Amino acid sequence: MNTFGRIFRLTSFGESHGRGIGGIIDGCPPGIEIDLDFIQGELDRRRPGQSRLTTQRREGDRVEFLSGIFEGKTLGTPIAFVVHNQDHRSGDYDTLRHVYRPSHADFTWQQKFGVRDHRGGGRSSARETIARVVAGAVARLLLRKTGVSVQAYVSQVHTVETPRSYKELDLSLTDASLVRCPDPETSARMVAVIEEAARQHDTVGGVITGVVTGVPPGWGEPVFNKLHADLGFAMLGINAVKGFEYGSGFTGTRLHGSEHNDIFIPGESGTRTLTNHSGGIQGGISNGEDIYFRVAFKPVATLLREQPTVDDDNQPITIHPEGRHDPCVLPRAVPIVEAMAALVLADHFLMQNLYIRTENAQKKERKKDADAPSN
Amino acid sequence: MNTFGRIFRLTSFGESHGRGIGGIIDGCPPGIEIDLDFIQGELDRRRPGQSRLTTQRREGDRVEFLSGIFEGKTLGTPIAFVVHNQDHRSGDYDTLRHVYRPSHADFTWQQKFGVRDHRGGGRSSARETIARVVAGAVARLLLRKTGVSVQAYVSQVHTVETPRSYKELDLSLTDASLVRCPDPETSARMVAVIEEAARQHDTVGGVITGVVTGVPPGWGEPVFNKLHADLGFAMLGINAVKGFEYGSGFTGTRLHGSEHNDIFIPGESGTRTLTNHSGGIQGGISNGEDIYFRVAFKPVATLLREQPTVDDDNQPITIHPEGRHDPCVLPRAVPIVEAMAALVLADHFLMQNLYIRTENAQKKERKKDADAPSN
Amino acid sequence: MNTFGRIFRLTSFGESHGRGIGGIIDGCPPGIEIDLDFIQGELDRRRPGQSRLTTQRREGDRVEFLSGIFEGKTLGTPIAFVVHNQDHRSGDYDTLRHVYRPSHADFTWQQKFGVRDHRGGGRSSARETIARVVAGAVARLLLRKTGVSVQAYVSQVHTVETPRSYKELDLSLTDASLVRCPDPETSARMVAVIEEAARQHDTVGGVITGVVTGVPPGWGEPVFNKLHADLGFAMLGINAVKGFEYGSGFTGTRLHGSEHNDIFIPGESGTRTLTNHSGGIQGGISNGEDIYFRVAFKPVATLLREQPTVDDDNQPITIHPEGRHDPCVLPRAVPIVEAMAALVLADHFLMQNLYIRTENAQKKERKKDADAPSN
Amino acid sequence: MNTFGRIFRLTSFGESHGRGIGGIIDGCPPGIEIDLDFIQGELDRRRPGQSRLTTQRREGDRVEFLSGIFEGKTLGTPIAFVVHNQDHRSGDYDTLRHVYRPSHADFTWQQKFGVRDHRGGGRSSARETIARVVAGAVARLLLRKTGVSVQAYVSQVHTVETPRSYKELDLSLTDASLVRCPDPETSARMVAVIEEAARQHDTVGGVITGVVTGVPPGWGEPVFNKLHADLGFAMLGINAVKGFEYGSGFTGTRLHGSEHNDIFIPGESGTRTLTNHSGGIQGGISNGEDIYFRVAFKPVATLLREQPTVDDDNQPITIHPEGRHDPCVLPRAVPIVEAMAALVLADHFLMQNLYIRTENAQKKERKKDADAPSN
Repeated sequence: MNTFGRIFRLTSFGESHGRGIGGIIDGCPPGIEIDLDFIQGELDRRRPGQSRLTTQRREGDRVEFLSGIFEGKTLGTPIAFVVHNQDHRSGDYDTLRHVYRPSHADFTWQQKFGVRDHRGGGRSSARETIARVVAGAVARLLLRKTGVSVQAYVSQVHTVETPRSYKELDLSLTDASLVRCPDPETSARMVAVIEEAARQHDTVGGVITGVVTGVPPGWGEPVFNKLHADLGFAMLGINAVKGFEYGSGFTGTRLHGSEHNDIFIPGESGTRTLTNHSGGIQGGISNGEDIYFRVAFKPVATLLREQPTVDDDNQPITIHPEGRHDPCVLPRAVPIVEAMAALVLADHFLMQNLYIRTENAQKKERKKDADAPSN
Repeated sequence: MNTFGRIFRLTSFGESHGRGIGGIIDGCPPGIEIDLDFIQGELDRRRPGQSRLTTQRREGDRVEFLSGIFEGKTLGTPIAFVVHNQDHRSGDYDTLRHVYRPSHADFTWQQKFGVRDHRGGGRSSARETIARVVAGAVARLLLRKTGVSVQAYVSQVHTVETPRSYKELDLSLTDASLVRCPDPETSARMVAVIEEAARQHDTVGGVITGVVTGVPPGWGEPVFNKLHADLGFAMLGINAVKGFEYGSGFTGTRLHGSEHNDIFIPGESGTRTLTNHSGGIQGGISNGEDIYFRVAFKPVATLLREQPTVDDDNQPITIHPEGRHDPCVLPRAVPIVEAMAALVLADHFLMQNLYIRTENAQKKERKKDADAPSN
Repeated sequence: MNTFGRIFRLTSFGESHGRGIGGIIDGCPPGIEIDLDFIQGELDRRRPGQSRLTTQRREGDRVEFLSGIFEGKTLGTPIAFVVHNQDHRSGDYDTLRHVYRPSHADFTWQQKFGVRDHRGGGRSSARETIARVVAGAVARLLLRKTGVSVQAYVSQVHTVETPRSYKELDLSLTDASLVRCPDPETSARMVAVIEEAARQHDTVGGVITGVVTGVPPGWGEPVFNKLHADLGFAMLGINAVKGFEYGSGFTGTRLHGSEHNDIFIPGESGTRTLTNHSGGIQGGISNGEDIYFRVAFKPVATLLREQPTVDDDNQPITIHPEGRHDPCVLPRAVPIVEAMAALVLADHFLMQNLYIRTENAQKKERKKDADAPSN
Repeated sequence: MNTFGRIFRLTSFGESHGRGIGGIIDGCPPGIEIDLDFIQGELDRRRPGQSRLTTQRREGDRVEFLSGIFEGKTLGTPIAFVVHNQDHRSGDYDTLRHVYRPSHADFTWQQKFGVRDHRGGGRSSARETIARVVAGAVARLLLRKTGVSVQAYVSQVHTVETPRSYKELDLSLTDASLVRCPDPETSARMVAVIEEAARQHDTVGGVITGVVTGVPPGWGEPVFNKLHADLGFAMLGINAVKGFEYGSGFTGTRLHGSEHNDIFIPGESGTRTLTNHSGGIQGGISNGEDIYFRVAFKPVATLLREQPTVDDDNQPITIHPEGRHDPCVLPRAVPIVEAMAALVLADHFLMQNLYIRTENAQKKERKKDADAPSN
């Protein structure tokens, strides 16, 4: 149960302090140009140590492709890649070998598997998301051809929230912000909140908003694999995520149907809607409007302060983590949210092609020459 | 893309005005006693016409099993079932053949498939959830053996919300309430809100809270198929759902890590946590505490009043639906939420058995008699 | 593990003496015209009692579709169907409740599941293939549009074998033969062999040859899901099948590479091969030549004579089956072989469309109107 | 479509002249000791250059594990591995860039993907089987705990065939033979046939026999995923394989039912069969007897002599391959056949555990302490 997607698929691997993190991308069509700088750039956006707000674990995090690319283009074969781990300071974790850190996966992992790599969270470490970012970047190279654009930004940190909707923001400013919030005034307040938490050896959470533009009507499935169900599944699979909503979300539950319905209107090149409470998806299928959603991240569980807990013999113990940890994961989670959204959309793009293509194929009878013998 | 689950799997079928709704359940272990009254009872909780608040479409909705059960127990073979549609009033929909109802799937369906059964929403109708409720009831019969209990209730309708957490409510009162809210005072106010909406030919949405108790530590998967990601995927696949959160959810994003962390404490029969902001799941794997979550439902899109829209030729038109429709789906959605949660948990129960069992299998070498000849 | 196929998928159900046999077809594109007479005709070719050579169990075997079809065409939604069982003579099987019939699945089933429906073989009965024939017929309606034709015939019964290759036979004569062998002289000898076996209360096996024409180059996958691996998997999943070979098969292992290689030659509308030892598949992918293969069926295990065996308490016992059974399944297995081949090819047709379509999609940038507002 | 297996799963990658060949193993239970020497030993049995009969391409073929193993045991997390390619002599292939070699995948690959890595067959090269051998070795480490043993040997080369059944051979002699035939007299004749073919710049094929002992009754699935269907699928997915049969196979089609049936007899520790035409599998499920099967390999397609063909412009051309190629792949294919069989059996072992385990789980009600608070 370690593969994401149905046609465009990522199978990932790697522990935090093992040899490396990587994966295999299956189902990527042949002939896609692989822009290595773009892919590395996405990884750099996720990388620790990129700003004064993030953990100082220094990892070059250089991606190496092992297969599936020939003369700069995809072959249609599996694309394997690895990012080697470099800055092991596993010794930091020796004292944690028999200890369950609060609100981490240490306890549940031990209960499930009976064995674990305790160093840096092992497979439960957020380093696992490296594979998602690489695969998501390849998905974006595919989507680029279709006119689909995927963007995310930090819209809330702790209690500080931008008052503007995504429509009122210039999303090209996102990366210029230390916290990846494209609203400069709010961004400054978010930085202050994070720095204050760090000073207290405490942590904060928040919300990332995602926006997908350019999806034509018809992507998604009507029953179990609704487009938003796949997006929600993708987001809830990211470490520390506690909630997902799209379109009007939880707020929309407080409206009447007469306020909430999106009225259809004739557009120049097809039917549009007057409002977009639907978040670009109706009955699980895209309707051509912008898709937007919000993802809730809990505050980071690792506190650089003393905390009581128990060990693996069910005995009370006190821990005082040192290591290197972010007081807030939101800024580095932005490229992860984008990557997961891209993986979902690339998959649905390919699934939807089946319908369109089949229709065409039926129109032409196959003509075959009869000139050659065969035994 | 019409199958839900990996080991305990539901493959469903059926259109609103076709011959019937049904499915095939695969992966159910042999020897489970099938309590037909319990299963029919769950369907009855979902059935239209059950109270003055719901649509008056009258369907007996009797489930008929076609395979997989022998002498009252499951065989381990596929369990097929069908609920025949009876009360077709397809004529009600003739005027909608070329019209896109606002915030319905009519437009997106036409865009995706190029053809649709316009009668009653076809496959996009909420009647499709009949298959989920039947399969979910079978999953509950399996879970019953493991001590797991799945319950849901309406915690918010429009702006009326119970002020009590699930811990403070007696969930056995849920079905005694017309709106399936176990808080009597709030229930009465919810009924009033729904009746007022109906009088205005308007509709309302709300929130359903789900609670799962008795899950032992160790269910779930650490990366993509986190237990809460599968729950969220399941819920977001239900018609009209706009959001999902578990544990502290969106609210938890406003806490500090020092407030949010669940401290481990020694319990008599194993490690427990002092608080449960984690919602019973850490790192995607159950920790033995209660699992709880919230599901947002938008207001019903079908309004029994005049609305502007466009037809399938992109021309403006006015509709005035008559048909029979609920002003609020929440009460009838409670058994659907429970069913989807049960499907997820039955699947993870079976997946987790792999680990435990394998460990045991390794301990005993297989002994084989050598007495019989074979060629 | 009860679903066949990846995109065009059959999930089946049913026991021999249960309510019925059926299935759900997923992934069939919308807009395919459903020719009910053709589908029923395929079922009739499989039906018991169709000739003096087959079992006299009388089943109307009428297929009933429950969903997925609207106004005579597929909707793109799941297509459910059922064939109700009618001629139960379950009493014939009462004596077998605790007995393991030789070379049947009774013993292994009991070992696996711990419970079984002993009546008529339960789920292991060849009646299960009804679902395959119906789904295969739908697959053939899809393939018909692509110019692909799937045919099979009996090429060997016991030691009687047609000396002619498929190229030298007129396959349109197949159904005119009582044993479905299009070589009239051989057909007569096969009938004699079967009738003699029946007189002896004995049974015979044989070989069915399959031929697929019209597949363009490019269908199949290069590694695990080679086109012939999927065909072999499909055939080996049919009851009583013991072997599969394609192209030169086992005989080809006795040739030198210089004799076996298929030399490429320029054809008028593309590259062809001079010979076809490859059986139309190279590296797991179709090359445009005819695909042909052979399937081995063991002699029927049910003998209408006395045989020693053991009961489910491991005690010796003697059985003397009566019931109604074919002395040779080959004639009725021809439509099953065709159906399974059609399912494989429909699946690969749809998979291959992904590549072609994606290439096209990349060529056109999506243009989107900017005239409509959205919030 | 690049993953093999359902629970114990291999996802593979790599081109012949790319960076390396490798894969990810999912679903391997935690706590399995990883014997690196055993795994490398299996790779060495597959390696080119191991004897005077095989290609002189020199590859160290050292396997490197990247994840999933901690302190010598599996973690239950994905096990990634890579074997780096070393001895690139890609220049040997420059002349083949636009040429289709007879009976290779060059033509079909180009037709399918529109692009290919022409060097050494790219992804279609038999080097791809490296991933299978590594994963199969891990599967064997798992199976070892269950008492299951998987062995294969060369039973036929060209027209030279051992007259002995596997029962009459000492399979521990297999690796002592240059051609991996444990019948010394036949082995010598096979070597002579291969050397004579090599002298003629020609090639030969043959048959590998596989034997699996120690499988308890109950592994396999009754309908599509019959144990032998999965074995056949696995074998037909190996390069150059043209046929698969198990138990009595094609020969058994010439017996009467009265000769072919395997009579059940009481064994000391359970029911056995007197003969084993069934090949250890009845109704798709293992019956506890030995599983045996035969796999047909065509003669190698690469001839070190002049051959006519066409180029990718459909023009006639003559090729004269040089490179380094085996005159017979059978000896090196033995570990591949064993590996694929082990993958199938490990998968079915884990699937069967579901049934057994669930039964146990139902017997005990979960007891949970009530001593700890939770909010």
